[in-house]
Amino acid sequence: MTRKELFQLILRKKSFLCVGLDPDITKFPAHIRQADDAIFEFNKAIIDATRDLAIAYKPNLAFYESLGIKGIQSLIKTMDYLEGFRSELFLIADAKRGDIGNTSTQYAKTYFEKSSSGFDFDAVTVAPYMGKDSVAPFLDFINKWVILLALTSNAGAADFQSQRIEAPEGTVKLFEHVLQTSRQWGNAENMMYVVGATQASMLQDVRRIVPDNFLLIPGVGAQGGNLEDAARYGMNNHCGLIVNASRSILYASADIDFAEKARAEAFTLQKEMESLLKNFGLL
Amino acid sequence: MTRKELFQLILRKKSFLCVGLDPDITKFPAHIRQADDAIFEFNKAIIDATRDLAIAYKPNLAFYESLGIKGIQSLIKTMDYLEGFRSELFLIADAKRGDIGNTSTQYAKTYFEKSSSGFDFDAVTVAPYMGKDSVAPFLDFINKWVILLALTSNAGAADFQSQRIEAPEGTVKLFEHVLQTSRQWGNAENMMYVVGATQASMLQDVRRIVPDNFLLIPGVGAQGGNLEDAARYGMNNHCGLIVNASRSILYASADIDFAEKARAEAFTLQKEMESLLKNFGLL
Repeated sequence: MTRKELFQLILRKKSFLCVGLDPDITKFPAHIRQADDAIFEFNKAIIDATRDLAIAYKPNLAFYESLGIKGIQSLIKTMDYLEGFRSELFLIADAKRGDIGNTSTQYAKTYFEKSSSGFDFDAVTVAPYMGKDSVAPFLDFINKWVILLALTSNAGAADFQSQRIEAPEGTVKLFEHVLQTSRQWGNAENMMYVVGATQASMLQDVRRIVPDNFLLIPGVGAQGGNLEDAARYGMNNHCGLIVNASRSILYASADIDFAEKARAEAFTLQKEMESLLKNFGLL
Repeated sequence: MTRKELFQLILRKKSFLCVGLDPDITKFPAHIRQADDAIFEFNKAIIDATRDLAIAYKPNLAFYESLGIKGIQSLIKTMDYLEGFRSELFLIADAKRGDIGNTSTQYAKTYFEKSSSGFDFDAVTVAPYMGKDSVAPFLDFINKWVILLALTSNAGAADFQSQRIEAPEGTVKLFEHVLQTSRQWGNAENMMYVVGATQASMLQDVRRIVPDNFLLIPGVGAQGGNLEDAARYGMNNHCGLIVNASRSILYASADIDFAEKARAEAFTLQKEMESLLKNFGLL
C-alpha cells in the first residue's frame, strides 16, 4: 500500500485507528477460551466488530510466538482472514526486529514474502540500535514499510532515547538523531516512525525533523496517551498518524459481550478521529 | 546454567566456541538440500561434528522464522536434539528482542518456558533501545540469561552505538552508557553483552565498565574479527568470553564433506582458544 492509498483509506473510513492484536488467553471470555483455536476466534470476533472503524491491524508477534507452533498457526489463520479485506486494511507486524544485514534480510522475508513464511504484512516495526545496514534490507521490498522505533511509550524510553547525544547536527536527543539519520535511509513513502502518545509534546520536535512521514502512535488507552494531543502536534496534510489501541479495545469486556464492547470503544475513538480530521481540514 | 557452571564447561572442553546455527538452504550441499527436513539434517550434522569442540550453539531465529511453520518445526527439532547434551552445552536464542514490559514477558516465555513455546534456551539476545522495563522481564527467569546488545560487529554500529552521549557518568559513547546503565538491571550472573570482535580494541573500554560479565563476541570468521585480540582485551578470570562463528564453520564446504570441513574449522578455533586459555593461566 502506498502513502497515497493509505491516506485515501483514512479519508474513506474517517479514521486513523489501528487495533493491536495482542491476544492474552487469560483475559479472554470463558466461551472463547474453550474454542479449538481460541486466539483465532478471538481475533476474528474483534476484526468483525471493528473493521469498518479501523484502517489497520497490528498483531504483536510476541503474543503468538510465546505459544509456539500453535500460536504461529493462529497468526497465519488471522492473517489469512484479514487477507479477505486487503484493500481496506494496512497490516503491521509489531516485531521490533533488527540485526546485521544478512539476518535482517531473513526477517524481511518473514513478514513480507508470503511464499517463504506464509505472512504478507504491509509493514514491520524495526529497532534502530544496529544502524543503517540493519534497516536497509527491509527497505528493499517494494511497496512495504519499515516502522522504525524513535520514541517509545514506556518508562524505559528515558534510559537512552531521551538522552542528549553529540550528533553531526548538534547536541540532540538520541531519538531525534535516529530520526535525522534514518531520513537518509528511506523516505516518507517507505518509512514510518513509532512515537509514543504518552509523550505528545515531543511530537512537535519529531515533526520538525520528519514533517511528512507517517507516525505510528501506540500508548493511547491502556498506556495513558491522549488522542487530541497526538493530533494537535502530529497531524500533517496526509493525516500522517496511525494511532494504535490494543488492550482498551480487546479487553473492554471479559464477558459474552466482549466484541460489542470492543466495537463501542473503537467507535468512540473513530468518532474522535473523524472530528480531529475535520478540525484539521482534511475531511 | 550458572556462571560457575559455564566456566567449568569452558575448562572441561578447553574452548569458548559458540557455533551459530544460521541455516541457509541455498548454501547447503546438494544431498542435504534433498532431505525431508533439510535444516534439521544440516544442523544435526554440524552439531555431531562440532559438539565436543563447542560450548554453545546459537540458532539465529530469523533463519527459521523466514520459513514459516516449517522453519519453526526444524528449530524445535534441533533444540530437542541439543537437549540430549544439555549438561555440556549453553543454548542461545539469537533473537534481538525487546519491547514494552508485558510484551517482553511474552518473548521471555517464548525462549525460556518450554511448556509455553516448546523452547528452553539458556539465554536470549536483547536490544537495549527501549530501556530497563523492556529488559527486566527476561531477568525474572531464574538461571536464564539476557545477552544485551552493546557494540555490534556491523558497519551500522557507528550510526548510534559509537556516538557520544551526555550521560550522568560523563560524556561517553552510547554503548558505554548502555553498559553502565544496565549494570543496575542485572549482574554478572544473569547478564552478558554482545561486543563485536571487529572492534577488539574497544573491548578495553568495555572491560573497564563490566569487568566480570561474559561477553558474546560475534564476527570472528566471515565478519573479519580477530580471536587473539578478543582474548587479549576481553578475557577475565572466568574466561568471560563466548566467541561465535557461524558462516566460516557452517559453510566451510558445500560438498559431501561439509561436516568434516566444519569440524576442521571448529577444531582450529578450539585449539587457538585452548592456547589462549593457557596463556591467560586458566588452564
